[in-house]
Amino acid sequence: MPSVGSGLDSPSDLTQIGIHDLSLLSPSAQPRGRILLVGSGPGHPSLLTLATHKALTKHANLVLSDKLVPAAVLKLIPPEVEVRIARKFPGNAEGAQTEMMEAAVEAAKRGLTVVRLKQGDPVVYGRAGEEVLYFRSHGYEPLVVPGVSSALAAPTFAGIPVTQRGVAESFIVCTGVGRQGKDVKLPGYERGRTLLILMGVARLPQVLAALQEDGEGLKVTSRRDGEAYPSHTPIAIIERGSMPDQRVIASTLKNVLAALDSVGEQRPPGMIIVGWSVLALCGQGDMTVLDEGASSKDEDRVRTWLGKNEWRVTEGLDSGWRYL
Amino acid sequence: MPSVGSGLDSPSDLTQIGIHDLSLLSPSAQPRGRILLVGSGPGHPSLLTLATHKALTKHANLVLSDKLVPAAVLKLIPPEVEVRIARKFPGNAEGAQTEMMEAAVEAAKRGLTVVRLKQGDPVVYGRAGEEVLYFRSHGYEPLVVPGVSSALAAPTFAGIPVTQRGVAESFIVCTGVGRQGKDVKLPGYERGRTLLILMGVARLPQVLAALQEDGEGLKVTSRRDGEAYPSHTPIAIIERGSMPDQRVIASTLKNVLAALDSVGEQRPPGMIIVGWSVLALCGQGDMTVLDEGASSKDEDRVRTWLGKNEWRVTEGLDSGWRYL
Repeated sequence: MPSVGSGLDSPSDLTQIGIHDLSLLSPSAQPRGRILLVGSGPGHPSLLTLATHKALTKHANLVLSDKLVPAAVLKLIPPEVEVRIARKFPGNAEGAQTEMMEAAVEAAKRGLTVVRLKQGDPVVYGRAGEEVLYFRSHGYEPLVVPGVSSALAAPTFAGIPVTQRGVAESFIVCTGVGRQGKDVKLPGYERGRTLLILMGVARLPQVLAALQEDGEGLKVTSRRDGEAYPSHTPIAIIERGSMPDQRVIASTLKNVLAALDSVGEQRPPGMIIVGWSVLALCGQGDMTVLDEGASSKDEDRVRTWLGKNEWRVTEGLDSGWRYL
Repeated sequence: MPSVGSGLDSPSDLTQIGIHDLSLLSPSAQPRGRILLVGSGPGHPSLLTLATHKALTKHANLVLSDKLVPAAVLKLIPPEVEVRIARKFPGNAEGAQTEMMEAAVEAAKRGLTVVRLKQGDPVVYGRAGEEVLYFRSHGYEPLVVPGVSSALAAPTFAGIPVTQRGVAESFIVCTGVGRQGKDVKLPGYERGRTLLILMGVARLPQVLAALQEDGEGLKVTSRRDGEAYPSHTPIAIIERGSMPDQRVIASTLKNVLAALDSVGEQRPPGMIIVGWSVLALCGQGDMTVLDEGASSKDEDRVRTWLGKNEWRVTEGLDSGWRYL
């Protein structure tokens, strides 16, 4: 027999506790804190959702922010609201995480509305799940507010569609680093699929090796599950997507390391996007990647795209963003 | 040699044409229209980005909206702004698409700021790419404004994390329908991966068959590339994610059809999410899915999750959303 409930499994207390809706509280009611887990989007402050903007500007008594959240987003928080930034440094990731979760519960117990502010979307490698379970175990069911994910928005800012008719029918999102720093197993080549790799730019040589290594005639290697990627497959590194100093380095698997070396200092955070969607919207566009027999023209396709160059570097945002 | 540019390949005209920034125009300058391609998010109006909200409420002279954009979002548009909704009906999808693109260019030529409003994120199966190339070929470089994608947000509203330490290290997004209505090839089972299928609920029986069919000892079938999914793999159907009448039907591959039958009428749009992340945050949570030898406990895992039931149906949103 199915159980039919209403709302989430653990009913939220939010109906009774809106700090900014005191008219709803009966005089004798004890205000109880609440915790909102929100995503800032990729960086540009206009990519906050209305919900997150409202949480930060109208509801928050305390903001506990991850280290990567950009200054332009933090600046939106009213000056009277306390803001704490996670003290994440190499070797202290777990400690900083625990510190933040404990601080949130402690403040909620004092009746405060706590906003846990995370970069991007809190559930895309944002550890929202751990925090949900921790807060729940301490009596607080947090409200998770989605944000625009950097994984999807940064490609859009770079002019690269994660899906595209005739080019990319699906996409896969993974990281360049496995659990406990081990090598991660990357998915194999599929012509019609866009591969998005977060947290992999610092390990680009290993990522490239995993994508291309041959496995002696086998489809599977210890670091890749499926076909090897042809060396002319398009790839782009998107650094600081949606930020004023955004930089996009686009090339092929064969030449991307030289391309990255050529631009000097890296600009973290960066992400990697691999597949034919990287060139799909360049110039007049190319929507013929999935046509029958199209792979025989791939070298031409790359030459049309890059011209006489082996890579292309684009800096900054479309000027239209200054109006939004 | 790399080419180093600034901004996108085709420089935008937006610096010269802000209809609402007339002070920037020299007296002799001809105002030229512009086109913004924006995403509404999954449905809840608070999931609009600030950028999209500003485009709709401050910049738009004409809004050309896809049919799926919810009324609550359309209601935010000021009454003096003309709104046209795409006339998409079976057999007319291409016609409606062309009609919208032509109307946008025609209005831009008259100097208007046109907002093409799409559901979710415009590049996740939103055909943003076609429109970018079409507008560019007519002299207008559109600005694409990301939206919160339903593919990621609907699971969050359903309490399901698309990534989760110890459970789901990557996720893949695809559709349940292939090009020209053909069967799509679905990815195989990977224990640590969440599978998100858009536009597949109406074809659920075919999707389930593709995921589970045996291929006579082979890993690959005509409809699936990789291992078959065990019949106890968790699956959820999320209908109208983030809307007040959101409904989540969670079960196993084996029982989900009966579960869906049991709730009566379907509530489109819906999406499918498959993998162990479906149960990861239920109750006290389960983060042990990727532990060594953990698969031997999968039947127990499912029983702990569903109790004596074969499925679980949850209706409505967390009450906290009424404040955001």
